[in-house]
Amino acid sequence: MSRFLSEEAARLAPYTPGEQPADRGYVKLNTNESPFPPSPKVLEALTSAETAALNLYPDPDCGPLVRALAERYGLAPENLLAANGSDEILAFAFRAFCGEGRGVAYADITYGFYKAQAALFGLKSTVVPLREDFTLCVEDYMNCSGTVVIANPNAPTGMAVPPSEIRRLLEADPERVVIVDEAYVDFGSESCVPLVGRYGNLLVVQTMSKSRSLAGGRVGYALGSPELIEGLKRVQYSWNPYNVNRLSMLAGTAAVKDEAYFRNCCDAIVQNRSWTAAKLEELGFAVLPSCTNFLLAKSGRLSGEALYRGLKEQGILVRWWADGGRILDCVRITIGSMEQMKALVDGIGRLLERT
Amino acid sequence: MSRFLSEEAARLAPYTPGEQPADRGYVKLNTNESPFPPSPKVLEALTSAETAALNLYPDPDCGPLVRALAERYGLAPENLLAANGSDEILAFAFRAFCGEGRGVAYADITYGFYKAQAALFGLKSTVVPLREDFTLCVEDYMNCSGTVVIANPNAPTGMAVPPSEIRRLLEADPERVVIVDEAYVDFGSESCVPLVGRYGNLLVVQTMSKSRSLAGGRVGYALGSPELIEGLKRVQYSWNPYNVNRLSMLAGTAAVKDEAYFRNCCDAIVQNRSWTAAKLEELGFAVLPSCTNFLLAKSGRLSGEALYRGLKEQGILVRWWADGGRILDCVRITIGSMEQMKALVDGIGRLLERT
Repeated sequence: MSRFLSEEAARLAPYTPGEQPADRGYVKLNTNESPFPPSPKVLEALTSAETAALNLYPDPDCGPLVRALAERYGLAPENLLAANGSDEILAFAFRAFCGEGRGVAYADITYGFYKAQAALFGLKSTVVPLREDFTLCVEDYMNCSGTVVIANPNAPTGMAVPPSEIRRLLEADPERVVIVDEAYVDFGSESCVPLVGRYGNLLVVQTMSKSRSLAGGRVGYALGSPELIEGLKRVQYSWNPYNVNRLSMLAGTAAVKDEAYFRNCCDAIVQNRSWTAAKLEELGFAVLPSCTNFLLAKSGRLSGEALYRGLKEQGILVRWWADGGRILDCVRITIGSMEQMKALVDGIGRLLERT
Repeated sequence: MSRFLSEEAARLAPYTPGEQPADRGYVKLNTNESPFPPSPKVLEALTSAETAALNLYPDPDCGPLVRALAERYGLAPENLLAANGSDEILAFAFRAFCGEGRGVAYADITYGFYKAQAALFGLKSTVVPLREDFTLCVEDYMNCSGTVVIANPNAPTGMAVPPSEIRRLLEADPERVVIVDEAYVDFGSESCVPLVGRYGNLLVVQTMSKSRSLAGGRVGYALGSPELIEGLKRVQYSWNPYNVNRLSMLAGTAAVKDEAYFRNCCDAIVQNRSWTAAKLEELGFAVLPSCTNFLLAKSGRLSGEALYRGLKEQGILVRWWADGGRILDCVRITIGSMEQMKALVDGIGRLLERT
């Protein structure tokens, strides 16, 4: 470890993003991106006049984007904060609502970034195991005294908890902040956003990286009570006030206004997911019921590692965790276009023939 | 203070960016933006094909941008890290190289963000006063045991320290990290970048917000030893791995490759600065010698507040600090186009006539 690092930096647990190899073209099903380009309105929004105005700082409060989001979700601008991706929102929230005196609780199998951010802020983490069948039970969080973070639907299981369950958690302790990370909510599960007006301790986090095809644009947002949003802003203005650039702000605003395109993309993913899950089951896979744009699947005949490596050799990337524990023999497959899904199923077929 | 905030968040000292009022059109000379649009190559780089690829995550290591920067500065890619503006680079550096056991030293009159970030990370700050004439003397930092941050040229004074002085500081304690914030270096002072290869403890921070007309694009970068760059990456991957979006990456790469446009813009600012400083002196102002894109100036007849308010009434924004202490009667004036500078001088003339 470098002599220049602070003790705090030496203790970090940096996140490992999905691989992005550039040695050949891949059917890329490993980082849960959308297979579709963003709405054509996004391209229209990036005019030469807007590019010419790049010499000026962006609005640190993201006015137009926040107003478009408020309208879309039936909330007030005071209920919203935009950031450079939902990872940044999560970091703001971890700093705002957790600290030495208040730890954080999250599932054992969930988005790996929570662990990285807990280490960043030196937080005491309570890791709550999912049940045997990968169900997340809010009952298991009732006694957690710190802030609770729940990915809903959860990743990489793809399974969701109904908002009525989250409500029980919110009501059990109104002093406890509950962060519901809804990165994948648009593919078929029920959102907690309608609860925002009723529960001051609820923070919902969403992203444009999945259902709005803007992973490359980095636009995430939080929806919560004005009190929680103010807390996030304190951190924003201490870390990086101008956190959303002008181009991403234009792109995000255009994307959120094109509801029809958004619906079409989500519908296509849901259809392709059904087709893929059925095919995988035909091939002897156990597939968790997913309401996201990915499937967690396990072959009866091939290990997770063999699947991952065998598919990569054929130019198909899926996600596999070498330290996966209970999900070591699973792979997470992003739902792409039908063409990509057919390539995947053919690739798996070839692997099974060889076995 | 909200009951939901952690103790750490309650202790924050959020930064106040320059005002961006939208009630009318302003001659905007308050946030040190460039008056020129970015290079025309930036617009060319933002093609429809690139916009269509926004569904894919950006390269978290910013490959093309980092390579273009490495070539421009005669360094290796290992010497570089790009981020969402240089404020984010500073935050990474404050976390990586400071902590409970290692504080931070900076000048009493300097970029206000250092104080905000010291509060964010709960750091012990040593505030080192500038000399009577606003000179920064490295001698005053020799005994500081923590990390040292020097804005060079300094803001809002506009005055620079020669790299030979910074070298003395680097050599006095090779275990001590020295962060040199060169946000304004391109307007006429000498850079410490040529020292990067020789001093493992030197981190230079630059931005595309000023000299490359990309304040709205949010592109900052660090230049330093591979050891320091690795330290920054640990924080990046714990905070927000995909921190530079695809569009800003394209814009930044195009901007750094258009050296001729960059030179022309910087030359124009230097010329306009000379003209403006001479005019202000004719009007009885004391003007600090500036090698930046702004002037810190003090009228013999009008208070700083009267200047700020009187100009704002006329639709001209300059920066004034109500808590300015030694510089309470100064205003900071961004150097804009000649048209803007003439409007400023005329505006001041009108104020002085009334006095």
